[in-house]
Amino acid sequence: MANVEPKVLRGFRDFMPGEMIARGKIINKIKEIYESYGFVPLATPALEYKEILLGYGSEASKQIYSFRDPEDNEVGLRFDLTVPLARVISQHKDLPRPFKRYQIQPVWRYDKPDPGRFREFIQFDIDTVGTDSMVADAEIVSAMYDCLNELGLNFKIRFSNRKVLNSLLVFASIDTKLAHSVFRVMDKLEKHGLENVRLELGPGRVDDSGTEILGLGLKDDQIAKIEVFLNLSQGTRHQAIDSLKELFRDTPGSEEGISELEEIHKYLKAVGVPDEKAAIDLSIARGLDYYTGPVFEAILLDAPRFGSVMGGGRFDKLIGVFVEEEIPATGASIGVDRLLSAMKHLEKIEMRSSVADILITVMVPNRLAGYLEIAKELRAAGFKAELYMGKERSISKQLKYADRQGIPLAIIIGPDEFEKNEVSIKDLRGLEQKTEKIPSRVEWIKSKPGQVTLSRKDLLASVSAILTGL
Amino acid sequence: MANVEPKVLRGFRDFMPGEMIARGKIINKIKEIYESYGFVPLATPALEYKEILLGYGSEASKQIYSFRDPEDNEVGLRFDLTVPLARVISQHKDLPRPFKRYQIQPVWRYDKPDPGRFREFIQFDIDTVGTDSMVADAEIVSAMYDCLNELGLNFKIRFSNRKVLNSLLVFASIDTKLAHSVFRVMDKLEKHGLENVRLELGPGRVDDSGTEILGLGLKDDQIAKIEVFLNLSQGTRHQAIDSLKELFRDTPGSEEGISELEEIHKYLKAVGVPDEKAAIDLSIARGLDYYTGPVFEAILLDAPRFGSVMGGGRFDKLIGVFVEEEIPATGASIGVDRLLSAMKHLEKIEMRSSVADILITVMVPNRLAGYLEIAKELRAAGFKAELYMGKERSISKQLKYADRQGIPLAIIIGPDEFEKNEVSIKDLRGLEQKTEKIPSRVEWIKSKPGQVTLSRKDLLASVSAILTGL
Repeated sequence: MANVEPKVLRGFRDFMPGEMIARGKIINKIKEIYESYGFVPLATPALEYKEILLGYGSEASKQIYSFRDPEDNEVGLRFDLTVPLARVISQHKDLPRPFKRYQIQPVWRYDKPDPGRFREFIQFDIDTVGTDSMVADAEIVSAMYDCLNELGLNFKIRFSNRKVLNSLLVFASIDTKLAHSVFRVMDKLEKHGLENVRLELGPGRVDDSGTEILGLGLKDDQIAKIEVFLNLSQGTRHQAIDSLKELFRDTPGSEEGISELEEIHKYLKAVGVPDEKAAIDLSIARGLDYYTGPVFEAILLDAPRFGSVMGGGRFDKLIGVFVEEEIPATGASIGVDRLLSAMKHLEKIEMRSSVADILITVMVPNRLAGYLEIAKELRAAGFKAELYMGKERSISKQLKYADRQGIPLAIIIGPDEFEKNEVSIKDLRGLEQKTEKIPSRVEWIKSKPGQVTLSRKDLLASVSAILTGL
Repeated sequence: MANVEPKVLRGFRDFMPGEMIARGKIINKIKEIYESYGFVPLATPALEYKEILLGYGSEASKQIYSFRDPEDNEVGLRFDLTVPLARVISQHKDLPRPFKRYQIQPVWRYDKPDPGRFREFIQFDIDTVGTDSMVADAEIVSAMYDCLNELGLNFKIRFSNRKVLNSLLVFASIDTKLAHSVFRVMDKLEKHGLENVRLELGPGRVDDSGTEILGLGLKDDQIAKIEVFLNLSQGTRHQAIDSLKELFRDTPGSEEGISELEEIHKYLKAVGVPDEKAAIDLSIARGLDYYTGPVFEAILLDAPRFGSVMGGGRFDKLIGVFVEEEIPATGASIGVDRLLSAMKHLEKIEMRSSVADILITVMVPNRLAGYLEIAKELRAAGFKAELYMGKERSISKQLKYADRQGIPLAIIIGPDEFEKNEVSIKDLRGLEQKTEKIPSRVEWIKSKPGQVTLSRKDLLASVSAILTGL
């Protein structure tokens, strides 16, 4: 056996405890918030019939891990959570309408892996299916706002509307065949700046790496109109809406998109989502072709290089694909791994590889039952208490174990303390102020600072006081 | 597109919200308890190199979903969480010892599906790697006890030791080649009764369906010795250990297994796990060949037909397979789906397809912003409040929606109530006492019972009082 090298496939990775604990905190917070809006969980199988996975076009087919199963079915690993949702909706006719679900499962894409891109990753999707009410869209944006707020992040949500973008085509006399390309260029405004957007809409440009980017060949007056349009989203949501109405005064069919923007603005206002946190940004298009109405995304203002950490929009033509019925839907995807990376970068999340509050060290191995009693007492009081089970006999090495795992408190009971019914508690967080150099950490661990000895009966109260800092 | 029939593969299933919510509660409770013992989460990729999956023998190979990936690697979907753990241990040399991890992920097995057996199912594994201390085994059993207690179940944990079973072979002069077969027959004691076990150890028998079961051909005195052995586990743990010592007085090498049983007993006693909830049962062997020491399992006394809902043991030869090193380990698997089925059967878990506490009905569609403000107020106070977004205009149909989802409270605000700054709260749980016949449920919904009207400023206090029943 030993000649099998233990390794994972390229583009795949293990989630070690530190990452799992931090990611779990983020996921739980987001779950809790979407649940408070009435969203319910759903899970679907990893494997589906390949023809189901190809449900909305073959664009994805090259990325699907597919094979023939032992029953000779052509099957594949799901590459998103939207196709499975469409299948579930078609199959379970008794679901309430709207059906508001969240789904947190891995998806697999055979993609070129790079440092930030994996072939297996967690997708966290929230969708409301079966209503065309703008309340549904506003709710998803408002919950997004709650999530990013509660995670303690400095963020901005930007939203727009595909119908408004379509009106821009009419207004600037742009062929609808160019829609996708024009929107894609506009979407890069934040990243590439107005001058580059202008060049890409017109004659083209050469980027920093010397690569030539072909232009779309729009005429100057068309580009000027797009520019005017993009500038509308400088002020408040209310101002942007008023200016849009003015600009599209003579553009037929432009009312619907604007009134959708207006409704969302009104609902966001009702639930207290301010302009500076959720603004209209008319450059936003979102990549996917399937959006039909509102589109939205969130970026972190202190970590813009991580891109959008949440995004989505309305897709009214997609969910009914298996039943040839138009079933309206709106939703968002949360980039959990991207959020985690950004929060690590911003030091907005505690990274430690243990969940324990307390390590109970073992000085007298033949009194394990006594240590276990203390562990039980602590757990019954709601603390997470780990009993040291490693091979080290020395207390300082056991404390080093706690320190490495990020366990804040250690309990020390030697023969004397057993005799006198006493316990010592050592607060290892004192180490945080120390240098990272191990020799001095070891010195500190061996010394007395941060250590108190008290009567066994005061244990719970003291642990509680030390942990909460009271 | 419409000729693609929306369906899932045989042996696979969707987890709809009702199941997901209930399963989530069970998983969270168990997670919380194992975390209180210091276990930390780990996740590994769904796809692994096939040669890794075959790490401990080819027994599983027929059940592995395997294929050639686009990079021409022979890959497979994991079929358990133990092989990935062994790989992680070999690859991450810096992990603490012991490494105490839990892992909750689906596994896939190409198996014959039947009503209770699926080809994709959640595995919940807990393992302590890198220590041969019996504290590790006792801890897993003690946490198992905590879990089943907290889930409100009437259960019994039974444990034994493979070393003790091996001593039985010596004691009864049974060829070690027969070990596996003898243990497998003994393991059926609970299910098939002593008489059938006796026949299967000896001449064989014909079962109820008329199928002939070949006997192992043991001699009468060998069978008598096994019977004496099995009878030892009638009394307390302490008595069983004393009787074992007596029985194996002259059996060389029997001390180690007995002393392991004794240690576990001592540690369980220290943390208050009583004899009647965790008993020594010498018939327990557990199916898997890889167990080397303690083995344990839990059954539900009120739902024995669901079999063991948690089980495991020590497997000291397995984890080091990729590095040709012996790394001791012990652990358990929790049958989450089996637990869920049993708890549904026992009505020990609430099944509802919504998480919301409150549905805010909509009587005046042009005052959506007003309804949203109330929703926000309720959410800010910690309630899960869903705003009705369906197509129904009539209040009784909206209330029917709440009733179907199992949402306990509804808030009703009509034009009058907006005017007077009042709200009505309707407690839909009154329906639980009503007949299941829909006409009368609708009648009830339309009528006033369970409804109070109060000033808007008293909303939060009243909702809280009604929900908690105070």
